[in-house]
Amino acid sequence: MSGAFTAVDVIRTKRDGGVLSDDQIDWVMDAYTRGRVADEQMSALAMAILLRGMTGPEIARWTAAMIASGERLDLSAVDRPTVDKHSTGGVGDKITLPLTPLVAACGAAVPQLSGRGLGHTGGTLDKLESIPGWRATLTNDEFIGQLRDVGAAICAAGAGLAPADRKLYALRDVTGTVEAIPLIASSIMSKKIAEGTGALVLDVKVGSGAFMKSVEQARELAHTMVELGGAHGVRTVALLTDMSTPLGLAIGNGIEVAESLEVLDGGGPTDVLELTLALAREMLDAAGLEDMDPQVALRDGRAMDVWRAMIRAQGGDPDAALPTAPEIETVRAESDGYVEAIDAYAMGVAAWRLGAGRARKEDPVSAPAGVLLRKRPGDSVRAGEVLYELRAEQAERIPPAMAEAAGAVRISSTPPVDRPLVIERIG
Amino acid sequence: MSGAFTAVDVIRTKRDGGVLSDDQIDWVMDAYTRGRVADEQMSALAMAILLRGMTGPEIARWTAAMIASGERLDLSAVDRPTVDKHSTGGVGDKITLPLTPLVAACGAAVPQLSGRGLGHTGGTLDKLESIPGWRATLTNDEFIGQLRDVGAAICAAGAGLAPADRKLYALRDVTGTVEAIPLIASSIMSKKIAEGTGALVLDVKVGSGAFMKSVEQARELAHTMVELGGAHGVRTVALLTDMSTPLGLAIGNGIEVAESLEVLDGGGPTDVLELTLALAREMLDAAGLEDMDPQVALRDGRAMDVWRAMIRAQGGDPDAALPTAPEIETVRAESDGYVEAIDAYAMGVAAWRLGAGRARKEDPVSAPAGVLLRKRPGDSVRAGEVLYELRAEQAERIPPAMAEAAGAVRISSTPPVDRPLVIERIG
Repeated sequence: MSGAFTAVDVIRTKRDGGVLSDDQIDWVMDAYTRGRVADEQMSALAMAILLRGMTGPEIARWTAAMIASGERLDLSAVDRPTVDKHSTGGVGDKITLPLTPLVAACGAAVPQLSGRGLGHTGGTLDKLESIPGWRATLTNDEFIGQLRDVGAAICAAGAGLAPADRKLYALRDVTGTVEAIPLIASSIMSKKIAEGTGALVLDVKVGSGAFMKSVEQARELAHTMVELGGAHGVRTVALLTDMSTPLGLAIGNGIEVAESLEVLDGGGPTDVLELTLALAREMLDAAGLEDMDPQVALRDGRAMDVWRAMIRAQGGDPDAALPTAPEIETVRAESDGYVEAIDAYAMGVAAWRLGAGRARKEDPVSAPAGVLLRKRPGDSVRAGEVLYELRAEQAERIPPAMAEAAGAVRISSTPPVDRPLVIERIG
Repeated sequence: MSGAFTAVDVIRTKRDGGVLSDDQIDWVMDAYTRGRVADEQMSALAMAILLRGMTGPEIARWTAAMIASGERLDLSAVDRPTVDKHSTGGVGDKITLPLTPLVAACGAAVPQLSGRGLGHTGGTLDKLESIPGWRATLTNDEFIGQLRDVGAAICAAGAGLAPADRKLYALRDVTGTVEAIPLIASSIMSKKIAEGTGALVLDVKVGSGAFMKSVEQARELAHTMVELGGAHGVRTVALLTDMSTPLGLAIGNGIEVAESLEVLDGGGPTDVLELTLALAREMLDAAGLEDMDPQVALRDGRAMDVWRAMIRAQGGDPDAALPTAPEIETVRAESDGYVEAIDAYAMGVAAWRLGAGRARKEDPVSAPAGVLLRKRPGDSVRAGEVLYELRAEQAERIPPAMAEAAGAVRISSTPPVDRPLVIERIG
C-alpha cells in the first residue's frame, strides 16, 4: 500500500477540497508516525484540513488511524463499569479532582488520563502535583491495578497511547493549526478511546475562558465527539457549560486542590458543586449506575475516602499541608454595587502570569501561585471590600498579573441576570 | 523587531483571512532564511496563502523581502540596455536558445539566469549541457563580463540571489503548495529583479502542457508579475501563449539545441520562429531598441555569431556534434487524415520517460533522449507515415514512453482550425 500514495497527493486532495480516502488517511498517519511523512508535509495537510474541513467519515477514519498508531488499553480486568470525563479546558476548572473519586465512590471505575496546562488554562496533573509526594506517572499495570483496588486513577497518558496524536499535537501547537474542529475532536477522542473507557462524558466549555468562544462552535465540536465515541463503542454524552466566568473562587494549582477538598468535605462554591454533581449524574447514567445518588456519597464521606486512597496510591500524602504563597496582594472594589461579571480569560492569564501556568512545555509551574476570588458574579459588594487576591512565589510576578486582571471584575448598580452553568446536553 | 512577532501569529493572521503587515512579511522571510522560522511553520503559512490568497501590496512586499534576503546584481557596468525573458515552462520550449543571441545581436544585453527541468517540462540549462564542454556556472564577475563582451549569457542563478526563494521553492515542491499564484509570481520575479535586468518579457504558457491550464489563471499570473516588475523599476510585459501543442518538432535536450540552430540558421519550424520573433520584438521594444528588426539579424547571420561566441565563452564547442541516441522507435499513422492536435502534456511526459527529464532533483538527464515529431497540427498524413520518433539511450525506456504518447496525436478527416500562438499581450 505504501507505494500507492505520496504525501503531496494526499495534501493536494484536501487542499483542493476533496475527501481523503480511507487508504490515504491510513497511509499518511502511519507514514507520519514512522517519520516517512515529514513535519512540513503534515503541517501543510493540517492547514488544508483546518481551512477545507473534513466529512464525518473522514474524521472517524482519521481518529481510528490515530488510535491504531499505538496500543488500546484493555480494562476488562476491572470488574466495574468504566466511565471517564474530559473537559475542553477552562479557567478554575478543577472539577476532575472532586468528580473522579465521587463517581468511583458510587460504584464506577474512573480511568482518568489527564494533561498539563498550556496557556491560560490549567492542567489537572499540575494541580495534583501540589500535593507532596504525588506522582503523575503510572505503568499500564499500575493504572489497571489502581482502578481495581481504588476505583479511580488520575495520571499522565502513557507514550504507547495514540503516539500519532502526541506528535501531531506538538506540531499543531507551533504551526497555527490548533483551532480545527476535526483535529481537536480526533485528538481528544483518540486518547480517550485508546485508554479503554467504556463510557465518556464530555464537558465542552463555551465563553471567553474557553477555546470555543461561541455556542455554535462548541455544539459542532460536541456533536463530532459524541459521534466518534459511538462509532468506537464508547457511550458518549456531552454537556455544553459556561466558561465566561471562572469556575469557583480558586484559579491556580494548590488553591484549586484546596477548593476541591472543600467540595469533597460537603461544602465548596455552589457552581463547582453544581457542575460536579451534574457531570457525576451523567457519568453514572452512562455507566449504567443511574440509581446511585452522588449527593449521598459526598455527604457520607465515601467520596473523600476514595480521594485519600487515590492520592495515597500514587505516593501522595493526603494530610500534608499544601504550599502557601509568600506574596499576596489584595485588590479592592472602588464602588458599591453588584459583581456583574468576572472575565474568565483575563483571570486565567493573570494566574498564568503569577506562575500557575507555563509559557513553554518545559517550564515548571508554581504550586501556590494563582488568583483567589473573594466575590462571585451576583454578590453585592461595598467600596473597599476585597474582590480578589493575587498570590505568587516572587513579588515581581504581581504587577504584570495585576495589569491583566484590571477590569476583569465588572461592578454594576443592579444584580446581574443569572446565567445557566449547563447550557445544553448533547448525546 | 524580531521580538514583536511569532510564527504562529503570522500564520494565524493569514489563516483567518487577514492581510499580513509589511513588518510581519519582512520578519517571517528574514527569520525563515536564517532558520528561525521552521520549515513546518513556513509550509503551513504557504498553504494558508494558497487557500486565502494575498493582496497586491502583500505580494509586492513578499517579493521585496525575498529579494532583500540576498544580493541584487548591479549591471550598470554593462553599457547596453539589459532585457531578459522568462517562460513559465512548456513542452518543447527551446525559445530561450535562439532568442537570447538574437536579441543580443540587435544591440541589447540579455542576462538570462535559467533553471533545470523538473517534471514534464524541460530546463534550458539541461538543454545547453548537451553541447560538449559547455558549463552552466558563472561567477557574478564572469556573468557581467560576458554580458559586456558577448551581449548574452545563459547560466545558472548564483546562490546569492534570493536565497529565501531557493529555500521556499524546495519546500513548496514537497508540501503541495506550488500552485499558488502569489507564490509563483513572487518566486519568478524575485529572481529576475535580483539579477538586475532593466526590462523583462514574460512568456506565460496556457494549456495542457503548461502549469496554468486556463487563460484566466494565466492572465492573473501575468498581471501580478507585470505589476511586480513595474513596482521594482523593471519594465515588464507578458505574452500569453498557447501550450496545448508542443513548440516545434523536438522535445528533449540535444534535439532542441539542434532545432534552435536551424532557427538561427534562418530555418526551423514556423511556430518556433514565430514565437522567437514575437518575443524578440517585445524585448527590443522594452529595451528601447524598437527600431531594430530581428528578422534581419537572423538572415545576415549576426544572431548565429552571437550564439557561437556565447557558447564558446562558457567552454562549449559550437562545432562539436551533438550526441545521438542508439535507440530509435518510430510511430506511424493508422489512418489517412489531418493532424488535429498533439497533446503537449502527454508528449512532455513521454520525453521525460525517455530520459530527457528528471524525477528527482539529483537525477541526471539524457542528452540525446526525447520525442521528435514528424508531423504538426494541420499537416495532412497518410496511413503508414511516421508521426513521431522516440529516442533513448536505453531500449527499456521506449515502451513506457510509447504508452504515454499513445493517443497524443489526434487524426481527423478535416483540417483543424488554426489556433493563435500568441493569445494576449499584457503590459
